[in-house]
Amino acid sequence: MFTVTVTPRFGDADALGHINNVSMALWFELARNPLFDIFVPPAKIPDRGNFPLIMVHTDYDYLAQMYLRSVVEIKTWIEKIGNKSFTVYHEAWQSGRLCAKGRAVIVYYDFGAEKSAPLPGDKRELLSGHMLPQEGDFGR
Amino acid sequence: MFTVTVTPRFGDADALGHINNVSMALWFELARNPLFDIFVPPAKIPDRGNFPLIMVHTDYDYLAQMYLRSVVEIKTWIEKIGNKSFTVYHEAWQSGRLCAKGRAVIVYYDFGAEKSAPLPGDKRELLSGHMLPQEGDFGR
Amino acid sequence: MFTVTVTPRFGDADALGHINNVSMALWFELARNPLFDIFVPPAKIPDRGNFPLIMVHTDYDYLAQMYLRSVVEIKTWIEKIGNKSFTVYHEAWQSGRLCAKGRAVIVYYDFGAEKSAPLPGDKRELLSGHMLPQEGDFGR
Amino acid sequence: MFTVTVTPRFGDADALGHINNVSMALWFELARNPLFDIFVPPAKIPDRGNFPLIMVHTDYDYLAQMYLRSVVEIKTWIEKIGNKSFTVYHEAWQSGRLCAKGRAVIVYYDFGAEKSAPLPGDKRELLSGHMLPQEGDFGR
Repeated sequence: MFTVTVTPRFGDADALGHINNVSMALWFELARNPLFDIFVPPAKIPDRGNFPLIMVHTDYDYLAQMYLRSVVEIKTWIEKIGNKSFTVYHEAWQSGRLCAKGRAVIVYYDFGAEKSAPLPGDKRELLSGHMLPQEGDFGR
Repeated sequence: MFTVTVTPRFGDADALGHINNVSMALWFELARNPLFDIFVPPAKIPDRGNFPLIMVHTDYDYLAQMYLRSVVEIKTWIEKIGNKSFTVYHEAWQSGRLCAKGRAVIVYYDFGAEKSAPLPGDKRELLSGHMLPQEGDFGR
Repeated sequence: MFTVTVTPRFGDADALGHINNVSMALWFELARNPLFDIFVPPAKIPDRGNFPLIMVHTDYDYLAQMYLRSVVEIKTWIEKIGNKSFTVYHEAWQSGRLCAKGRAVIVYYDFGAEKSAPLPGDKRELLSGHMLPQEGDFGR
Repeated sequence: MFTVTVTPRFGDADALGHINNVSMALWFELARNPLFDIFVPPAKIPDRGNFPLIMVHTDYDYLAQMYLRSVVEIKTWIEKIGNKSFTVYHEAWQSGRLCAKGRAVIVYYDFGAEKSAPLPGDKRELLSGHMLPQEGDFGR
C-alpha cells in the first residue's frame, strides 16, 4: 500500500462548500506517483520515449462529502495484474471516514509503436508487492 | 442530446504530449451545465440552499489519445432515470473519432437535511427529453 | 485582437460562490492558443523540439466577481514586442463588465540549448498584427 | 514564514515536460491555507457569510523550469499590511533552486455588503508575525 496525505486547497471546494468531484481525479493521480518509479528511473523526465504506461479507465465513487480544513489520506493498492495491464485501487479518507474510492486501469504501452505490450516480469513482481488484501480486512 | 465544443488549452496535454485523463473530468462537468438549468433557475448562483444535486459516481473510458490543436466535441445524453437519481452518459469526439466516454450518476439531494429525495415528476420529464437512444444508432 | 468565449464549469466557482482566481490562469492560457499557431504549424503536436516559447511572467487583476451561469469573453492583444520576448494582455468580460485583466510575458526560447533567442522577423510581424491600441479606445 | 511541500502530480507537467505555469497558481493558493486560519475558525466551512477575504491581484515570475519527480517547497511570507488589504509573497524552490516567486493581494471584504473594510487590529497582529525580512537575508 502507498499512502499520501493531501491538504485541500481553497479552490478544491465548489459552490456547494464541499470538495468538487474533479479533485478526486487530481488526488488519485498524485497517489499513483510511486507506481511511476517502478516503470521509469526516478531521475528521468517522462516523455513518449521512456514512459511505458497509458491510462484506459478511471472510476470514482463519492461516498461522503469532503470539506476544506481537514487533510485527506489517499491509500493506494494494486487490485489486479493482468497480462498487459494492471488495476490500481484508491481510497480517500477524511476525519476517519472513507469518503471516496476508485480505480485506474493502466496499460503497458509502447508510444512509438502505438500498441500495448505484455507487462515485463520484473515489473509484475514489483507491482505484486502492493496488492490489495483479498480476504478480510488485514491492514486496511 | 446536448453538445459542447471544447478547445484544449496548452496545459491539458501532459508530458506524453496527449490530453491528460483529468481533463475529461473537467470537460464532462462542463458538458453537464445544461442539466443544471433543469434544476436551478438560470439566474441563481448555486449554493447549498438551492442546488438539489450531488455527484455519487463518475467513470471514464479512454479509447484513443486526444491531442492539442483540434477541438473536441462532447455529446451528452441521459442514460437512465431512477427513483432518486439519474445517469448521464458522455462521449468525447476529436477529428471524427470517439476518443473517450463516461458516466456520471447524480442523486437528487437535500443539502439541509443531508439526505436524498425522489426526483420530482417535472424534472423527470425534462430529463427524459434527452434520453440516449436504446436501439440502433438513431441520431448518434 | 483574439476573442474566445468561455463557459464556466461548475467547479470554477469556489466556496464563496464566485469564480476562483485560478480559473483566470486557465482561461487566459486558453486564450493564447491562436498565438501558438504563429510559432508552431497547426498540425504539429508541441514538444521541446518544436515549441520555441517559454513563460516567464503572468499577472492577474481581479476587478469584479464573476459567477456561474453566464459566459465570459476573453479578449487578447499583444501589448509589447521586445527583442527576445513579447507581452500578451488579456481582459475577461462577463455581463458587459470588465471583471479581470492580466498579462503574460513569453520568451522566444530554444529548449535544446536552454537559452533565449531573438524573435525572428516574420514572427514579430505576425504578432504586430494584434497590437493593443495605444491611444484612445479604438476597437476596444 | 509558512512552508508547504508539494509533490508534482503527473499532469502538472505539460507537453514541454516541465511544470505548467498554472500549477503555480494552484500551489501558491494551497500555501495560503494557514492564513485562512487567522480569519476563519478552523472548524468552519468557508462561505460568503463567514469568510472575509477577496483576492484582487496575483502575479507569478517563472525563474527556472520545474520538473516532475522532485518535491517543491513553497515558502510564504506577508510582504505588506495595508489599511484594508495585505500582500502575500511566495517562493517555490526545487532541488535547492528558486524556480518561481509571486504575490497575492488580498482585501478584507464583507460579502454581504459587497465592500471592503479595515483589517481588524487582532488580524493585523497575527499577520505581522509572518513578515518578510526587510533587510539582508535573515532566515531566507
